Amino acid sequence: MGELDLIRSFVAGLGERSGRIVRGPGDDAAVVRAEGVAAITTDTVVDGVHFRRSNHSPADIGWKAMATALSDIAAMGAIPGEAYVALGMPDDFGADAARELVAAMDELAALCEVTIAGGDVTAAPVLFATVTAMGWADDADALVGRDGARPGDLIGVTGTLGAAAAGLQLLERGVSDSYELIARHRRPWPLLSAGRALAAAGVSAMIDLSDGLATDARHLAESSGVALHVRLDDLPIAAGVRDVVGDPVELAATGGDDYELLFTCAPERADAMQPAVMPIWIGQVREGSGLELIDGAGRAVELAGFEHL
Amino acid sequence: MGELDLIRSFVAGLGERSGRIVRGPGDDAAVVRAEGVAAITTDTVVDGVHFRRSNHSPADIGWKAMATALSDIAAMGAIPGEAYVALGMPDDFGADAARELVAAMDELAALCEVTIAGGDVTAAPVLFATVTAMGWADDADALVGRDGARPGDLIGVTGTLGAAAAGLQLLERGVSDSYELIARHRRPWPLLSAGRALAAAGVSAMIDLSDGLATDARHLAESSGVALHVRLDDLPIAAGVRDVVGDPVELAATGGDDYELLFTCAPERADAMQPAVMPIWIGQVREGSGLELIDGAGRAVELAGFEHL
Repeated sequence: MGELDLIRSFVAGLGERSGRIVRGPGDDAAVVRAEGVAAITTDTVVDGVHFRRSNHSPADIGWKAMATALSDIAAMGAIPGEAYVALGMPDDFGADAARELVAAMDELAALCEVTIAGGDVTAAPVLFATVTAMGWADDADALVGRDGARPGDLIGVTGTLGAAAAGLQLLERGVSDSYELIARHRRPWPLLSAGRALAAAGVSAMIDLSDGLATDARHLAESSGVALHVRLDDLPIAAGVRDVVGDPVELAATGGDDYELLFTCAPERADAMQPAVMPIWIGQVREGSGLELIDGAGRAVELAGFEHL
Repeated sequence: MGELDLIRSFVAGLGERSGRIVRGPGDDAAVVRAEGVAAITTDTVVDGVHFRRSNHSPADIGWKAMATALSDIAAMGAIPGEAYVALGMPDDFGADAARELVAAMDELAALCEVTIAGGDVTAAPVLFATVTAMGWADDADALVGRDGARPGDLIGVTGTLGAAAAGLQLLERGVSDSYELIARHRRPWPLLSAGRALAAAGVSAMIDLSDGLATDARHLAESSGVALHVRLDDLPIAAGVRDVVGDPVELAATGGDDYELLFTCAPERADAMQPAVMPIWIGQVREGSGLELIDGAGRAVELAGFEHL
């Protein structure tokens, strides 16, 4: 039995948690019971592009691959369901490393009540993982897209920003004295409960912060056909970030991989979501287009390095 | 706008064919209307492992990636629905090549009435494509797994064997004088209509021939807990294969990438499927385990190179 076969059989033995599986791994396709609507996303992480094997363990890599896909399901407000995993494995990535990677994927999946229902393992010259994640909802109205923001809506985020980007900088410098920041980079959490709570509370648009607030807020603005005015002074900067970088506000605005949720909601609904999440209000939706970052004096600011994002 | 953005916007502009799409590409996740059961499979092709850029055009690669995933949907007898595409693109694979690859994926998807409903494009040191394909059925009983073969069942295939493997040998030798064989390797067809017809006709088990009959028949035998006896003399050898290789029977039994369907069915049902497909009967299911290849004199044969498959 070859190494790839070992991994395949390991994938095939993973647990069923979503209660929808008719056929799991091991046939030509998995079969799941379907009703309402399905939300489907696919996300890839590649060695040297999204992580480095030199400073990420196999478990970190598996976790991150699963987390980035499930974060998209969170941003729709969907009930998490199943995940399908495609792995490309180079010769020097051994069977133990591969099992560690898949075990961490499955650990996060289990915490999120997600079933890994299928997979494909292949030889490849570089390590990569593609996770296709599926979530479910009773109907399409229960899900939140990027396109529903309306002028007058408030803009909120679910948590602090900049930690993952600061953690990455520490890793690149070879400094590992801030475990929290590095963990935020290596082991992001998909905010599935928060996403569902926000959807139930009636947010008008939502996106997960994978590429950084400046980039992702612009995506939401474009999809909704509105302008997002974000107050830089109100950005919640993660603890420890100020000790790592010269301009923590810029890092909070542009750093990626935080996987917090950015959302908009009508002002009259803002109080309704307090019990479910603790939203941090950072701006307002206006007529217009694009993203405006506003300083304490109310002036629009250009951040260095923002143009190329 | 960067090259990857161009490709993303191209993917986002692809057509809707399955009639299920609530949200297509461009949000955190696609949203599709769901009912009955969904069949989901994920398949990856990697440069140097499943194809070579030196003898496959970008369009060949896109076609093959889509075909291998849809072939798994065919083998379940499912109604084809949507596909989700993850692409890893190296620097030297330009925007034109990428568009050609995606256009060929979408060409095949269109022919199969499949919608490319989502995608992820990323930089990578090697070209790869992961396609997650979804099919649908009213209920799980309408689909066919690998596990339903019973002793006494007949074993059939939907078409001729060995062409793709012979085509690959020609490509590796740098000989291109048999267009048909090479096309079978570069542009396989997922047999979606045949798969649905076989499922409707009541076949007991089915698998697509991606790794070669000897390997895939063994998978089916293992899943069903039976032995498959296959008569080598009855294997339908594709036209032209005899001119390319010394042992065409061995190639028909072991060569991969034909993407014909292998299936089993109770003898009393065999006539029922004649109008839908023209099954070629190649053996019989018996009590026992594994695969036995039988020669004209009724003796079990070992094929050279079969052990390592």
